[in-house]
Amino acid sequence: MGLRTGILIFDDAEELDFVGPYEVFTMARQLKADGAEILLIAEHQAPVTCAKGMRVLPHASIATCGKLDVLLIPGGQGTRREVENKALLGWIADVAKTATWITSVCTGSMLLTAAGPAKGKRVTTHWAFVETLRGRKEAAEVLEQYRYVQDGNVVTSAGVSSGIDMALWLVGQIHDVPFARAVQRAMEYDPLPPYGGLTG
Amino acid sequence: MGLRTGILIFDDAEELDFVGPYEVFTMARQLKADGAEILLIAEHQAPVTCAKGMRVLPHASIATCGKLDVLLIPGGQGTRREVENKALLGWIADVAKTATWITSVCTGSMLLTAAGPAKGKRVTTHWAFVETLRGRKEAAEVLEQYRYVQDGNVVTSAGVSSGIDMALWLVGQIHDVPFARAVQRAMEYDPLPPYGGLTG
Repeated sequence: MGLRTGILIFDDAEELDFVGPYEVFTMARQLKADGAEILLIAEHQAPVTCAKGMRVLPHASIATCGKLDVLLIPGGQGTRREVENKALLGWIADVAKTATWITSVCTGSMLLTAAGPAKGKRVTTHWAFVETLRGRKEAAEVLEQYRYVQDGNVVTSAGVSSGIDMALWLVGQIHDVPFARAVQRAMEYDPLPPYGGLTG
Repeated sequence: MGLRTGILIFDDAEELDFVGPYEVFTMARQLKADGAEILLIAEHQAPVTCAKGMRVLPHASIATCGKLDVLLIPGGQGTRREVENKALLGWIADVAKTATWITSVCTGSMLLTAAGPAKGKRVTTHWAFVETLRGRKEAAEVLEQYRYVQDGNVVTSAGVSSGIDMALWLVGQIHDVPFARAVQRAMEYDPLPPYGGLTG
């Protein structure tokens, strides 16, 4: 049996933050045909309007999704509101107690530090959010210039598109590296930013 | 006034094929604040179930979306069904008459060759679909090993994730290269596949 992966979505979650990893995990499910489940989970079973206006119908709510092996929390402007949402933070803390991997993309790391799973851990986040997250003094260290940072079973990614790299890394850890490369090839992820990279 | 961009979605459209470019175009809209419109358009105003199970509520239907400056057709298993959908192909042909840019990702190029805009043009597609598209004998040439191919105002991308590179290139053409780099930085697109690239 494949793993059960839950990807949290909420109003003003950033679209690519969760769809990048969703594509990676669901492509892995298709190639492996292992019955893995990948669920888009919202607090309530109602349409979610993402940060850039895409409207998504969740597969499950936090009340109905069941036990998860992998949790992914995306970023987006909505994290500033959800970090005050005690019901949601409580759910994240509960899921983290039994999940194998607890992950985030972009400013989603703030929900993981606030809820507990990433408190006292080394994390990363979107480059423009590094100082804000440091100011909260929940993480042991907020690292820069990494696509993702692993500390135990908590893996936090940098901004938006970095969730694709993190999800592929995770597929390599859950299965193996040749399989992760097969997923990468199926989604033709041989990236070539047209006007050069941002660093180096 | 910003441009009006329409991204077609249909049942079994591949998630990242359209959400990658959607993120690029909407991030450009946010940074430029030029009133650009980016619409997810379906044949009918009803929920769309994508290839990997994500359910999206379209912003408009092909009957209500109005005139478009940029058209993007994603791929996904659903293209095999939609290539027989004369109403949809007719709409693509109509939009292409007045659009400035006509684009596709992955197997979406087959809809552009079948509908007319890419007929007789040089195109690309997902690596696993190259021979099928060649067999249709609609394109002048189906190129391999390119992230995207421009022929006049038709731009076709390779598989799934390549739509991100193509959309960033297009932002650089519509606006300018420094602005495209600002969009790239906002989405932290400094990709680093964890287990190496696919080529080179």
